[in-house]
Amino acid sequence: MENKNFSFELIKECPHTGARAGILHTPHGDIETPIFMPVGTQATVKGLRPDDLHDMEAQIILSNTYHLFLRPGHEIVKKAGGLHKFMNWNKPILTDSGGFQVFSLADMRKVSDEGVEFKSHLNGEKIFITPEKAIEIENALGADIIMAFDQCTDAKEDGGASYAEALEARRKTKLWLERCVKAHNNPNQMLFPIVQGNIYKDIRAMCVEDCLPYAKCGIAIGGLSVGEEKSIMYDILDFLNPILPHDQPRYLMGVGSPDCLVEGYARGIDMMDCVLPTRIARNGTAFTRKGKIAIKNATYKEDFSPIEEECDCYACKNFSRAYIRHLINTNEMLGAELLSIHNLRFLLKFAKDCRNAILNDNFKEFHDEFMASYKIKNRF
Amino acid sequence: MENKNFSFELIKECPHTGARAGILHTPHGDIETPIFMPVGTQATVKGLRPDDLHDMEAQIILSNTYHLFLRPGHEIVKKAGGLHKFMNWNKPILTDSGGFQVFSLADMRKVSDEGVEFKSHLNGEKIFITPEKAIEIENALGADIIMAFDQCTDAKEDGGASYAEALEARRKTKLWLERCVKAHNNPNQMLFPIVQGNIYKDIRAMCVEDCLPYAKCGIAIGGLSVGEEKSIMYDILDFLNPILPHDQPRYLMGVGSPDCLVEGYARGIDMMDCVLPTRIARNGTAFTRKGKIAIKNATYKEDFSPIEEECDCYACKNFSRAYIRHLINTNEMLGAELLSIHNLRFLLKFAKDCRNAILNDNFKEFHDEFMASYKIKNRF
Repeated sequence: MENKNFSFELIKECPHTGARAGILHTPHGDIETPIFMPVGTQATVKGLRPDDLHDMEAQIILSNTYHLFLRPGHEIVKKAGGLHKFMNWNKPILTDSGGFQVFSLADMRKVSDEGVEFKSHLNGEKIFITPEKAIEIENALGADIIMAFDQCTDAKEDGGASYAEALEARRKTKLWLERCVKAHNNPNQMLFPIVQGNIYKDIRAMCVEDCLPYAKCGIAIGGLSVGEEKSIMYDILDFLNPILPHDQPRYLMGVGSPDCLVEGYARGIDMMDCVLPTRIARNGTAFTRKGKIAIKNATYKEDFSPIEEECDCYACKNFSRAYIRHLINTNEMLGAELLSIHNLRFLLKFAKDCRNAILNDNFKEFHDEFMASYKIKNRF
Repeated sequence: MENKNFSFELIKECPHTGARAGILHTPHGDIETPIFMPVGTQATVKGLRPDDLHDMEAQIILSNTYHLFLRPGHEIVKKAGGLHKFMNWNKPILTDSGGFQVFSLADMRKVSDEGVEFKSHLNGEKIFITPEKAIEIENALGADIIMAFDQCTDAKEDGGASYAEALEARRKTKLWLERCVKAHNNPNQMLFPIVQGNIYKDIRAMCVEDCLPYAKCGIAIGGLSVGEEKSIMYDILDFLNPILPHDQPRYLMGVGSPDCLVEGYARGIDMMDCVLPTRIARNGTAFTRKGKIAIKNATYKEDFSPIEEECDCYACKNFSRAYIRHLINTNEMLGAELLSIHNLRFLLKFAKDCRNAILNDNFKEFHDEFMASYKIKNRF
């Protein structure tokens, strides 16, 4: 399928790292890369409104096919006029295929070449998802970027997938990708193939080969940030960078701590998403340029300064750490809302700063300075 | 204490009912009465931001002394520069005295003339609140309008307070009011005495007499909407209307369904507050001019119209019933936020419509038309 609705312009490349700045053109507008994508699992970024997302300069958000298939059902979203209209978000949307959730949330999976039979994590209802079904759902949802249905394997050192399991998952992922491509025929949606292969570089390379014929304007990397150490992920990204299509955006799925963002961008990644910023917000944790802070800490009891002096988000412009601490301690929704706004704005601004550093030829310095001052955990 | 920071202008009175339109001047701005006041128990109207409250034209909000005393503590709010600054709300605020919560939430009460000893509903800590302490806390919070510390009695027909109990509560309430007045010396805060007396009219009349010497620019009616039938409350309000100060705003505490609003206004009430609009919002219930609707109802599954076509709130201008239903069904915070915005805007707009009807000499018709079309429950 030819597609003139999507194109990717590579504007600048960092001479010292793999970092790239570009623009991805989509039917709902342009996306300036590298970018972080807020996650709105159930057609809402938890606690926030579309206006908040516009204010924080979100360019694209992600939503989850598995969740929307279960509730409210893709047919209802289709009748509403698609996901953009349903949730009142007129900029680009990306949907995953549901593959990851089927393998992480659902019970009693039976995986065959045909597809996956599983029980809904909500009501135990038996469901059968095939690549064709995943594409049908994603077509109905109507996101700009949609993902192929794939098989994701665990990458934990202690009990992750064996080489044989990863190889078998690769076989199914390839088979399913071919069927996804065949089933998909909406020119307003760009299908991204997903590179699996776990921590095994030769399988990763096979997966890239599998994807290449079908990657038209974007390719995704799945099966990382699923339990392995960060250094292992970076090693895989270093390995993949030279063999991924140079002229297409690369999307690293489900990764979103500040250090992973800058390290991912440094390895040629253009797009990333994660529930981390909103999930930790609900637990009272805020990103700062020096590392995360737990706002419940007694240190902030009488701290009437904003989360970060230099931050331009709604939370930092209007409220103190002491107030947000009070909201979190009393389980008030506004606490989660304000920290979600801050954490997302932090990552979006950080992605923009990374992009500007690439454009201004100082990404390497930017990267090094940030990594020197940011407190990092080795585990996700 | 003389007070030039507060005054009440009575602009218009309905010739057929007791309804009145006025303006209450306060240090943080004017309040056009009759009015409904959103409740922000813990220094936040649940789920909403100050901007939302401005957008929906809230003129004054209420916050709860008991809750803020427990968390974060009034000293912290004082250090923050007061409640207005702490929660970033620059219009008028009213705080209750904590009396109602002490009698409804706290455990193991020991009531004496001196005050009330009780255990915190949060951690069981033993606390002693006196009228002086209540005023000290309210002074620290710094609301524009503060309430006297009173003893509220149940008014349920099946097991409410006896005549003797109501009489004893009146005695304490009078004693405590005198001590509150003595303890209070901040000219930027207007102290409202509270008329108790349960469902006993002669005790209500005594309470009015008790309050009159201390009511300078406002008087409150407590101990209603606590279990009795609405008709009993209306009867008490009819009784009180002619004996309350004519030139001061009258605040009916804790009442806020649309029918109670219009019926209360018709009986000379100028101010009302209630958690109802935000509480039912979190359960998925929306006000409409025809009555309440439960958005979870399957009827709304594919209803892509707004909650109310004619409503100008953020929820109605941007989202469908089907979408809000999905959010409530999936326990997404945004569902509660949107319904809270709608329900509060509904009541604020309704109060404004009542006021305009009074100003335009057609409040009686407005009242009758509304009551004829709105589905009412006899119980609170």
